[in-house]
Amino acid sequence: MTSTYRAPLRDMRFVMDEWLDAASWWREVPDWQDLDSQTAQQVLEEAARFVEERIAPLNASADLEGCRFDAGKVTTPAGFRESYAEFVEAGWPTLSLDAEHGGQGLPQLLDVALQEMLAGANHAWLMSPGLTHGATACLQMHGSERVKTELLPKVASGEWLSTMCLTEPQAGSDVGLIRSRATEAPGTDGYFIDGSKIFISGGAHDLTENIVHLVLARLPDAPSGTKGLSLFVVPEWLEDGDGGRSRNGVHCEGIEKKMGLKGSPTCTMRFERAFGWLVGEPHRGLACLFVMMNAARLQVAMQGLGHAHTAWQRAHAYAQERAQMRAVSVPPGVTVAAGQAAPIAFHPAMRRILMELRAIVEGERAIGYWTAHWLDIAAHHADADERDRAAQLASLLTPVAKAFFTANGFDAASKALQVFGGYGYIHEYGIEQTLRDSRVSMLYEGTNEIQAIDLLVRKVLPDGAGALDILLRHVRAEARLCQESDPLVRSAGAKLGQLAEIVGNTTRMIKARHAQDPETAYRVADDYLAMLGWMLLAFAWARTLRIATPQCEAEAFYVEKRDTGRFFFDYPLAAFAYRRSLVEAGCEAALPYV
Amino acid sequence: MTSTYRAPLRDMRFVMDEWLDAASWWREVPDWQDLDSQTAQQVLEEAARFVEERIAPLNASADLEGCRFDAGKVTTPAGFRESYAEFVEAGWPTLSLDAEHGGQGLPQLLDVALQEMLAGANHAWLMSPGLTHGATACLQMHGSERVKTELLPKVASGEWLSTMCLTEPQAGSDVGLIRSRATEAPGTDGYFIDGSKIFISGGAHDLTENIVHLVLARLPDAPSGTKGLSLFVVPEWLEDGDGGRSRNGVHCEGIEKKMGLKGSPTCTMRFERAFGWLVGEPHRGLACLFVMMNAARLQVAMQGLGHAHTAWQRAHAYAQERAQMRAVSVPPGVTVAAGQAAPIAFHPAMRRILMELRAIVEGERAIGYWTAHWLDIAAHHADADERDRAAQLASLLTPVAKAFFTANGFDAASKALQVFGGYGYIHEYGIEQTLRDSRVSMLYEGTNEIQAIDLLVRKVLPDGAGALDILLRHVRAEARLCQESDPLVRSAGAKLGQLAEIVGNTTRMIKARHAQDPETAYRVADDYLAMLGWMLLAFAWARTLRIATPQCEAEAFYVEKRDTGRFFFDYPLAAFAYRRSLVEAGCEAALPYV
Repeated sequence: MTSTYRAPLRDMRFVMDEWLDAASWWREVPDWQDLDSQTAQQVLEEAARFVEERIAPLNASADLEGCRFDAGKVTTPAGFRESYAEFVEAGWPTLSLDAEHGGQGLPQLLDVALQEMLAGANHAWLMSPGLTHGATACLQMHGSERVKTELLPKVASGEWLSTMCLTEPQAGSDVGLIRSRATEAPGTDGYFIDGSKIFISGGAHDLTENIVHLVLARLPDAPSGTKGLSLFVVPEWLEDGDGGRSRNGVHCEGIEKKMGLKGSPTCTMRFERAFGWLVGEPHRGLACLFVMMNAARLQVAMQGLGHAHTAWQRAHAYAQERAQMRAVSVPPGVTVAAGQAAPIAFHPAMRRILMELRAIVEGERAIGYWTAHWLDIAAHHADADERDRAAQLASLLTPVAKAFFTANGFDAASKALQVFGGYGYIHEYGIEQTLRDSRVSMLYEGTNEIQAIDLLVRKVLPDGAGALDILLRHVRAEARLCQESDPLVRSAGAKLGQLAEIVGNTTRMIKARHAQDPETAYRVADDYLAMLGWMLLAFAWARTLRIATPQCEAEAFYVEKRDTGRFFFDYPLAAFAYRRSLVEAGCEAALPYV
Repeated sequence: MTSTYRAPLRDMRFVMDEWLDAASWWREVPDWQDLDSQTAQQVLEEAARFVEERIAPLNASADLEGCRFDAGKVTTPAGFRESYAEFVEAGWPTLSLDAEHGGQGLPQLLDVALQEMLAGANHAWLMSPGLTHGATACLQMHGSERVKTELLPKVASGEWLSTMCLTEPQAGSDVGLIRSRATEAPGTDGYFIDGSKIFISGGAHDLTENIVHLVLARLPDAPSGTKGLSLFVVPEWLEDGDGGRSRNGVHCEGIEKKMGLKGSPTCTMRFERAFGWLVGEPHRGLACLFVMMNAARLQVAMQGLGHAHTAWQRAHAYAQERAQMRAVSVPPGVTVAAGQAAPIAFHPAMRRILMELRAIVEGERAIGYWTAHWLDIAAHHADADERDRAAQLASLLTPVAKAFFTANGFDAASKALQVFGGYGYIHEYGIEQTLRDSRVSMLYEGTNEIQAIDLLVRKVLPDGAGALDILLRHVRAEARLCQESDPLVRSAGAKLGQLAEIVGNTTRMIKARHAQDPETAYRVADDYLAMLGWMLLAFAWARTLRIATPQCEAEAFYVEKRDTGRFFFDYPLAAFAYRRSLVEAGCEAALPYV
């Protein structure tokens, strides 16, 4: 009844081997010269086995059971503790960590695929290790030698889990309003932290023996606003160096009752003379966290993709099994006896939904992995200019992927739920949990509205911002390559070329209007982000069509790619023009206050 | 923290008095000659008081508590039993029931407003009396004399609650697959019913002493499919006529764990030699239920509106209170000190959401009440042709309202949740419950996809179907009236006139394509329905602008109407062209099976 999660390994292989041709770039990187496609696939197969067998089966039960809070202690759902220990034991947290820090030194691309699987299988479970990479990167870059020696190895390996403590009741999107205080702890190399934090995922739990909190707080001489925030690392337990340890002043005061993610404890934390070390420079805490937040945003994008994929998988399976109503039409070669109910997968309204979900899932997978690939290039390319361009592009793509994928993930869950009819509303069919769990990703790690402002106001509009030009060059190059193929691919390429022109023109229009009316960019940011999202999916599908078309005789997989790509340009891409018309409205029309 | 429900009495008055000018038509109806606007408003004020004070406060607690099932008995959440008894005592179930049947004989229009309030305040609570009107109408029209004497009065008054037992595990949208059986009960005037039904709202509960089930089942000689279904009325308790009563063979076997509506028991029912009476002719059960289902569909539309209104009300209140980030712009006459956080209601992204919700809620209210008004005309007009035209129009509007309003209700809940940021995901802020509760209305009483097929395939495409022409005449007449006003209204009227032309042309295009490819209508039905929905909102706002404009000096209410109407034509109406482009795609492009 509840479909079992299956990792989309075939499509992951397509994206990595054919769409990205990742391995041929890996060969240029000294550390990865021995990494070929086959090895990468073996890693993914092993990950898939772990996720399908150990993590996915805990999803529905964890939703029913939830977390328990009792006298400051949090108990996670049955099976989480054991499966997390296996996850650490198997070395999954250190997949893309540098070998010099004890990791396996594989590309982030593989990590992103693992994140997609975990999110699709069990989003609540994923929340626990969700900040390990970000915390590791942050402490590597900004931690003191002592922090790097005493804390970092256990954070990086996942032996200790981490949190990011930003939000306070009055300070959500607006971290500048944070009030938590830090004062020097006399006679030590550290500080005492006092303050209250809310919405702290994994602030307390029973998964690891220690929890390492990264906390934003103000030093006594701090200016107000974001420029007065300093970052501290505050372990739940302090080790005395002689094998003993003492409880730090870190207290969980309760967990939230939420719409979803019930297997993940969302904690209210009180820091009371909690001892911690400064990370990075005083008053520069936010800058230290940026590396963490950017990594987290691409992860959240993968949650949107993971949910959309799971929604598609569940709805697709159900639509094959469930027979209702006579068929208006049937697939070639299929017959349904007169008067018999047909699988609902044959009904046009259901096909519209299923095809749309598939087109979005597979297009997003290409774009999400492309973003990770640019992060790998930014980290490992021999040429500094290439690294810089790759970093700029990844930085542009990240907010688009975060907001666009998570909105689509929720929308996909709702559309998939509709395929189930009344059963969709019932817990045991699983899809309503997907809908509830997926909704949070539009809110956290910067709401989707914050992402849109980040994209347009910070990354596109400023003079000299070249990231959009880099992106549009890639898009136009793909459009040109498509001109050398058959009519379907040529038509897709021509449409893609038009989208690039429209995005360029629309950006110039916004810029011109914004110079006169500085509210303009804020009125249009969400729709502008969605325009880029749809253009990116068109880019994904144009390249997919170009690759798949000559392969169609080899495997049904490529025929389905061709059908799905054609469908994408025929139907869902209409949303691009819709979003463009809303951007135009926002450039022209006033927006009342009511 | 959780905003308190407030019924939108001012806007209800605007729609009834100015938009519909209902009272001047009431004066033409003999039964309603004494019904003036003031009396109607008094009824609504009293309803609002009851809903705000007695029903709304039970909403969040019922969601937390849920229903309990134990040994065949269902316990509803605290407060439901007492408040339902008061509801019956106050006569609310019989508001629009004819005086000759013991009712107050008021227009359905007032009933629909009551339903909007109940849905907005507490959807789960509304589920209990939700079928009273439909069951009453069905038994009045098709019940035997005995049924009318012994059961109908208690059903109509709400003393006994009713259910509609259609769905079986294999028969959801496809009622033709129903397997429940009925055989003559020897020596009586009734039948024995055997079978299993699922998803029966209120199949068992502790609210009333008896529950009257309307059950579809097959007589022994029944043909297969929908033409072999007969309707039976099956009380939970049978009275022996001497004051004694015995338990009928009706058993609740469990209740579902659902995404929302947790205060309403969704029951699995087993009928085992359950005694019941035939309603209507053998094998004509579905026809008897149509009257019930149509009434239910407009009610479900009101749920969509109620949720959208509540979502708007909650988000609007929160956005005034919550201050985050510096303002890009502020309302005229308002200042925010430099460096201070501004109410998020000032931020353009939030204004976009809040304005869109308002435009949808108020536009839908006009259209929903308009539909109810046509039902009143269909029931009470002196002229048979007028009654027929009104019935046709209401029958066309009902599936549009059901599908369009419920999809918008869910979408509004999600957009409103976004205004709350992370708090939106937390139960105590209430909006996540609105989102969960609102989702079911897209599924039941015919999924929204079934509504779209009903609209296009059954009501628009058949030769001689004149309902769309009637609608377009009303729309064009409004567009012409708008030409006599100021530039804003003239512009709205001109756009409205274009929409009517486009709908006419698009309908002809679909008809022509469908004649060649009989899958066409099924591919485009959902988007076609949405096109009509947006045209209807444009109709609502054009008329609103025409009425409000000369009144703007009288009251701020009208200035806000004008701002909201202008916004509607500037921004949300872009969705009409988007839906139209999808209809065109569906007329042109094949739809794969994947």
